[in-house]
Amino acid sequence: MSDCIEFWFEFGSTYSYLSAMRVESVAKDEGVTIKWKPFLLGPIFKDQGWDTSPFNIYPIKGRYMWRDIERLCEKYGIAFKKPSVFPRNSLLAARISCIAQDEGWCAEFSRAVFFANFAEDREISDPETINEIVDSIGRDGPKLIAQTKLPEIKNLLRNQTEEAMNRGIFGAPTFIVESELFWGNDRLGDAIEWYKLKVN
Amino acid sequence: MSDCIEFWFEFGSTYSYLSAMRVESVAKDEGVTIKWKPFLLGPIFKDQGWDTSPFNIYPIKGRYMWRDIERLCEKYGIAFKKPSVFPRNSLLAARISCIAQDEGWCAEFSRAVFFANFAEDREISDPETINEIVDSIGRDGPKLIAQTKLPEIKNLLRNQTEEAMNRGIFGAPTFIVESELFWGNDRLGDAIEWYKLKVN
Repeated sequence: MSDCIEFWFEFGSTYSYLSAMRVESVAKDEGVTIKWKPFLLGPIFKDQGWDTSPFNIYPIKGRYMWRDIERLCEKYGIAFKKPSVFPRNSLLAARISCIAQDEGWCAEFSRAVFFANFAEDREISDPETINEIVDSIGRDGPKLIAQTKLPEIKNLLRNQTEEAMNRGIFGAPTFIVESELFWGNDRLGDAIEWYKLKVN
Repeated sequence: MSDCIEFWFEFGSTYSYLSAMRVESVAKDEGVTIKWKPFLLGPIFKDQGWDTSPFNIYPIKGRYMWRDIERLCEKYGIAFKKPSVFPRNSLLAARISCIAQDEGWCAEFSRAVFFANFAEDREISDPETINEIVDSIGRDGPKLIAQTKLPEIKNLLRNQTEEAMNRGIFGAPTFIVESELFWGNDRLGDAIEWYKLKVN
């Protein structure tokens, strides 16, 4: 039996941003625990033959997405500034997020990275930005950034991305309750409902 | 000012089925009028370089979709039997649906076609199936099927599909409130909310 809902996210993903900024408060209201699971969409998109976000490959879909995100941020009361680079490379942030996952500060760090990318238009692939974010939550930036170069840390993220693939994830965010996948920010409510009905 | 929500749908689309079977009752509860707008996804997918549904092109996404549809049908209390052909050719049904649109029986006819495709696994591209459906709602099957060969009827659907493209539709179902698009069955609630807040 599962005791949580897994929240699989990618720092470059706009809809992951929407979920990251509200998942903890929604879950708290419902008495559910969230397990944050960072992964990379790049290798998964590559398997589908894409070298960038489908929102760039299909411009009509892209235009819709940006309008939709703006509208949903207004609805949820979430700050938004359209990033000047999309999607941003999330490798460094995702590696640190994996370390944070094991140490219990993943939600706090990840929200700050999402905010930098989607509310402040900051370059989250730049170590300087990540250093400032890590510092702002009271952690040791230079030490953590150095750790991301270690093979065992690289493997944390690599294995988690592989796990995402093996479990049938093809986009972000994806919520998982045991073996049930719920794809997309829209489906957080359904994931919680499923958890309460079928698991608890 | 708009006096309705436009419901753009495609008979071959699984998520259109979910919306078609519940849109009228949801709208009635909210005091909103729905305008049914059949169109073809084929030409729009072709523009994106696809010769079939993306759920067939990307099997991982396809597997998720079938599980999701099953789960959502259970949630909504909608009958479901996985069609043995997917997506089915919707040309004939969509042409008759365009005639029905002008004559005020589009919702009734379209729901019956969706039901045949997704609850009874019947071949909706077969004139015999369509004939039976039309007959079951008290309309003249042979006459309507003959009409679908007239240039002016072919143009009704062609123009509506072109309108879909021009308005930025890239998938089905899409709800439109004035110029605002809401893509996907999940977004019916948002479309209604938008209508009530911004239009009325």
